[in-house]
Amino acid sequence: MMGTVYLVGSGPGDPELLTVKAKRLLEEADVVLHDKLPGPEILESIPEERREDVGKRAGGERTPQSAINERMVELAREGKEVVRLKGGDPFVFGRGGEEAEYLAAHEIPFEVVPGITSAVAAPAVAGIPVTHREAASSVSVVTGHEDPTKAESAVDWEALAATGGTIVVLMGVGRLPDYTEALREAGLAPETPVALIERGTRGGQRVAVGTLETIVSVRDEAGIEPPAVTVIGEVAATRERVIEFLANESGGEP
Amino acid sequence: MMGTVYLVGSGPGDPELLTVKAKRLLEEADVVLHDKLPGPEILESIPEERREDVGKRAGGERTPQSAINERMVELAREGKEVVRLKGGDPFVFGRGGEEAEYLAAHEIPFEVVPGITSAVAAPAVAGIPVTHREAASSVSVVTGHEDPTKAESAVDWEALAATGGTIVVLMGVGRLPDYTEALREAGLAPETPVALIERGTRGGQRVAVGTLETIVSVRDEAGIEPPAVTVIGEVAATRERVIEFLANESGGEP
Ligand SMILES: C[S@@+](CC[C@H](N)C(=O)[O-])C[C@H]1O[C@@H](n2cnc3c(N)ncnc32)[C@H](O)[C@@H]1O
Ligand SMILES: C[S@@+](CC[C@H](N)C(=O)[O-])C[C@H]1O[C@@H](n2cnc3c(N)ncnc32)[C@H](O)[C@@H]1O
Repeated sequence: MMGTVYLVGSGPGDPELLTVKAKRLLEEADVVLHDKLPGPEILESIPEERREDVGKRAGGERTPQSAINERMVELAREGKEVVRLKGGDPFVFGRGGEEAEYLAAHEIPFEVVPGITSAVAAPAVAGIPVTHREAASSVSVVTGHEDPTKAESAVDWEALAATGGTIVVLMGVGRLPDYTEALREAGLAPETPVALIERGTRGGQRVAVGTLETIVSVRDEAGIEPPAVTVIGEVAATRERVIEFLANESGGEP
Repeated sequence: MMGTVYLVGSGPGDPELLTVKAKRLLEEADVVLHDKLPGPEILESIPEERREDVGKRAGGERTPQSAINERMVELAREGKEVVRLKGGDPFVFGRGGEEAEYLAAHEIPFEVVPGITSAVAAPAVAGIPVTHREAASSVSVVTGHEDPTKAESAVDWEALAATGGTIVVLMGVGRLPDYTEALREAGLAPETPVALIERGTRGGQRVAVGTLETIVSVRDEAGIEPPAVTVIGEVAATRERVIEFLANESGGEP
């Protein structure tokens, strides 16, 4: 009997933002393959004997994707029900697409269980809607990992600026100076609102706000560190209009 | 005692894709204000005496947003715990931002409870990752509701085409001919893969695939109707490579 692999999103980190389905599968799975991205609150809720950290190898270097792929196939062929747990959504900068293709190529049945992506949720709990009837008719989610000055950079900051919509950058703490400059060169106003949300929905969540012009020094003064998302656009200014009554940030529970 | 308003996302429609928090709040709330977007499976699970349909007025016309806003404030002032339930995520084309600002302006404490947006989940369960290490460094989510030939259209299809990333269109069944043409004029190749996912994650889910050139007739032949999302970009071709082993579409459960 062949097992099934579930590519499961864990959401942004608050265990209550797991889906009902993810929670059930975490309880039922024979093995949960994970890295550090789902965050400590969720990982600690999985019994240690059923989880396997595939994020780092002995020695500390990152496990190559090929080793994770092979491990999924191996376990499924042993008949195991396998959860491959991903931070946020498995298909938003999560390499879930590559894993799905590998599984299919090896004739392993798999299921995709979407999770709440940090690209939407981290801004949301900070009081920032990524779209807005008047202020943003689109939202673009993009990786900040690439060097925008490199010719072969796959991210076109000029086109993103031209959309006129909200830009959400994942993995974008380190290269903040590079892409904020690229966006200014592309014509976005220096006073465009920008927010950084660190550890959104988790213990220790922090938010820092500024503009395209000031956000790098705001980041440095606040000491914002990964994981964090960057929200660029008029919507980032919503926060200051609602923060006083936003119960998310005062630990409000019903 | 003032009540709290919870702006809650219901996800794309599968009740198991509710978050643990949304499920709890639906059980605990005094009143659930909703329209039709969360879908029948979820709405039917809420006891009738605790839910109030604010989508349509007697007579059939749409309730103006102002009436919904006033109702939330009224109930909170009566001390009620109110869930304002939205399809998908409340802050992705959900008018949640406007509601948050209205609540704050009226000094009503509120909390945002993110939900899984159909923009990511509907493609995912059809086997389509919205980003991909090789094929898409960004994903832009946009409304298809506006007329792209109007000068005042807030959506810049030319800029979206230039990003080189995936484009996901919500509310885009009707105007599919307009924006596919706009994207071709902006330089996207006619053979760019396109997928339509109707009722993603719900009973009766349907998927239709084609290219920028063929998708309008594919839509017409399949009779695709709202709610559906349109996915435009190389990632849409992933589906055919994985579909045979994708348990989501054969009703596979552990
Ligand atoms: C490899 S990407 C994975 C994204 C994930 N698949 C998702 O949908 O959220 C990791 C990046 O996600 C963002 N991220 C993940 N969890 C976060 C959180 N709780 N708060 C802020 N950003 C987060 C950060 O930008 C981080 O660098
Ligand atoms: C007013 S928008 C609300 C979007 C919602 N806030 C979200 O995050 O999914 C309604 C549009 O969402 C999309 N949609 C919602 N649920 C869907 C589903 N289950 N399958 C496909 N599309 C869906 C359709 O494009 C529909 O026209």
